[in-house]
Amino acid sequence: MTQVFTPPPRLLMGPGPIDADPRVLKAMSSQLLGQFDPSMTACMDLTMAAYRDVFATSNQWTFLVDSTSRGAIEAAMVSMLEPGDKVLVPIFGRFGHLLCEIASRCGAVVTKIEVPWGQVFPQEQIIEAILKERPKLLALVQGDTSTTMLQPLSALGRVCHENDVLLYCDATASIGGNVLDTDDWMLDVVSVGLQKCLCGPSGSAPITLNDRAVSLIQGRKHIEAGLRSDGQEEGQGRVISSNYFDLSMIIDYWSKARLNHHTEATSMLYAAYECARILLEEGLTEAIERHELNGRALASGLAALNLRLFGDQQNRMNNVVGVYIPEDVPGEKIRHEMLMDFGIEIGTSFGPLHGVIWRIGTMGYNARPDAVLKTLACLEQCLLASGHRLSPGESVAEARAIYRAASDQPTQAPLEAVK
Amino acid sequence: MTQVFTPPPRLLMGPGPIDADPRVLKAMSSQLLGQFDPSMTACMDLTMAAYRDVFATSNQWTFLVDSTSRGAIEAAMVSMLEPGDKVLVPIFGRFGHLLCEIASRCGAVVTKIEVPWGQVFPQEQIIEAILKERPKLLALVQGDTSTTMLQPLSALGRVCHENDVLLYCDATASIGGNVLDTDDWMLDVVSVGLQKCLCGPSGSAPITLNDRAVSLIQGRKHIEAGLRSDGQEEGQGRVISSNYFDLSMIIDYWSKARLNHHTEATSMLYAAYECARILLEEGLTEAIERHELNGRALASGLAALNLRLFGDQQNRMNNVVGVYIPEDVPGEKIRHEMLMDFGIEIGTSFGPLHGVIWRIGTMGYNARPDAVLKTLACLEQCLLASGHRLSPGESVAEARAIYRAASDQPTQAPLEAVK
Repeated sequence: MTQVFTPPPRLLMGPGPIDADPRVLKAMSSQLLGQFDPSMTACMDLTMAAYRDVFATSNQWTFLVDSTSRGAIEAAMVSMLEPGDKVLVPIFGRFGHLLCEIASRCGAVVTKIEVPWGQVFPQEQIIEAILKERPKLLALVQGDTSTTMLQPLSALGRVCHENDVLLYCDATASIGGNVLDTDDWMLDVVSVGLQKCLCGPSGSAPITLNDRAVSLIQGRKHIEAGLRSDGQEEGQGRVISSNYFDLSMIIDYWSKARLNHHTEATSMLYAAYECARILLEEGLTEAIERHELNGRALASGLAALNLRLFGDQQNRMNNVVGVYIPEDVPGEKIRHEMLMDFGIEIGTSFGPLHGVIWRIGTMGYNARPDAVLKTLACLEQCLLASGHRLSPGESVAEARAIYRAASDQPTQAPLEAVK
Repeated sequence: MTQVFTPPPRLLMGPGPIDADPRVLKAMSSQLLGQFDPSMTACMDLTMAAYRDVFATSNQWTFLVDSTSRGAIEAAMVSMLEPGDKVLVPIFGRFGHLLCEIASRCGAVVTKIEVPWGQVFPQEQIIEAILKERPKLLALVQGDTSTTMLQPLSALGRVCHENDVLLYCDATASIGGNVLDTDDWMLDVVSVGLQKCLCGPSGSAPITLNDRAVSLIQGRKHIEAGLRSDGQEEGQGRVISSNYFDLSMIIDYWSKARLNHHTEATSMLYAAYECARILLEEGLTEAIERHELNGRALASGLAALNLRLFGDQQNRMNNVVGVYIPEDVPGEKIRHEMLMDFGIEIGTSFGPLHGVIWRIGTMGYNARPDAVLKTLACLEQCLLASGHRLSPGESVAEARAIYRAASDQPTQAPLEAVK
């Protein structure tokens, strides 16, 4: 007989996924609706409207892709790119490599520019590469959790538009915790996931596309076999090589036409909508400020544990901090102790940073003083037990001082922002 | 400000999605875990084991694709097919066309054979086509909800194996409510969704692959940029054109190696596992018998409403019944009344059957006498009000007689099977 599965209690302070807001978990326990029930399509419309605010855009085509955030990257690329198209990818961490990988699988010719992990590009360097390469698409990550870095983007959109280059941004790890101005920055396509600062589970990927991107994609629209009326043209342009990720079809499904495509993942739709509501009720600015405050308290507390912060702190995401694993302690053993003895997850790293840094996050529902203070207190115990030199109590005191400075009621007021 | 979304009460008696079992909704409200938490990977392993039983297979590679059922069809095809490969698709409804569509987008050369909607193929006809066409892949749907037909499959696998043809089956609409013997029938790859007889929401797609299919797919494995160690070979064979649906990578993620790919959609994993548990606790045979009984009661009750059943009743799925919309009633108006006045959803149809038949389902959590009897009682009211000739009371009496014949305690015993 199959056994019951009950997840153990955890506090997820890694680079994400993190604990979902209990409101999101509750929303997912709502009963399902038929695909074309007027209440279901109303929920889809509400979700589109809410994500326009989340993305800071007036783009009509703002909706969900029924996959994890990775799937939405592929949906954007496969719908825009044709074999031989030139793509420029600035790489400053693992997820830049992923963009190259996905673009290559679409048959694109990819040009990379790279900076060492822990740094970001000066925007001028990217602009120079745009003007030199004149790609069809510039694809980049805003916040790369592999390095904790946040790439400045604000000046790239105008240059792209003036040079007929499309600009795609993966903002999965940054949205909700860092400024992202889709329209002001003239980003053509942005896609994300729910599992970082948006307080939800992985499995639904909000995406927004402006008219420029939509018009390109609609130019490749083919009506599906089995749905075409007699005599109706099949389509035009080069057929998009994925059916599931064909954004022209997904747009038809989210449009008033409601042309059948996949069966919307209703529970994930409920989750995505509730994630947006939670963020918008708090306010985008307030949520970003909360992430900044908790990220700063976390970083200062970690430094006070006699840990060296990783990477360019001026361009760090608010919601995740990298610290070098001290040479005198066993990194994986401490991560294991944190998880198994204290129920707190902190992150390991990929590629060149594997075994070199831990990544500790404070995001979404877990961007809270109590979560940060607990993490610092327990990590101090693990480090002390491993013989790492530190001043006991200093870390938590440092973080509390930051919270106190931000508010008259130190650990209460920031918490209330979560409500 | 964004408004709260609360789904209205509905009884979903269409071709799916249907109401999720409350146990599944509850499972989705469990808190998340980190991606590589030992409890998370234990839950993934439990889910693999449970779905082996659901698919009636000993295939090691039985896991979830993080998409709707449509995505898993694409994952199977894009991972197996290369441009120019020959695919044979027997079409007996809309979803056969979808298989052609997806195979074509993979660059395959598709040969179709067709029977009129409402019929299935004699297996000999498919075997003849296999021997004539000698495709790389035979792809077919087991149960096509567009026509309510269930294609017999049991003899195809042996012929495919003897002729070096791969056999893929989409069993989304049939699994759990109709016999599906993956290993006995020698099916190489089967994929499904949760939203039909498995009592769950759309958004996670269980798949199983035997060694023959896995070996083909592993022959095209390429390690992702950003995850390769220095000097490690990138891969061999023709790269799979999707990253998200690359089953060789998804297998690595579900393997002991746990090589990072997507971030598993944890809430959907919980849902999928609970769906399997519910089915296995009842027993596969018992669940299929329950669907057969409720489907028979529904069909007989519909006939007693003076409605003509659609299609070959000998080859109908247990879980969905098609009926001709009588010429004397407004089909869409009645569907709308059923939904808005009685809170019961029945299905419309696609393509050649649009406006011709309604599709009424009894599956998963809704394969219950009370759900069937309510649906018949309310439909009778709508038909009577529209002036359709029928004998009041006969429909429900007919269905109750069937339940009574199946049990000494007519409406109680079958209900208990749900527990």
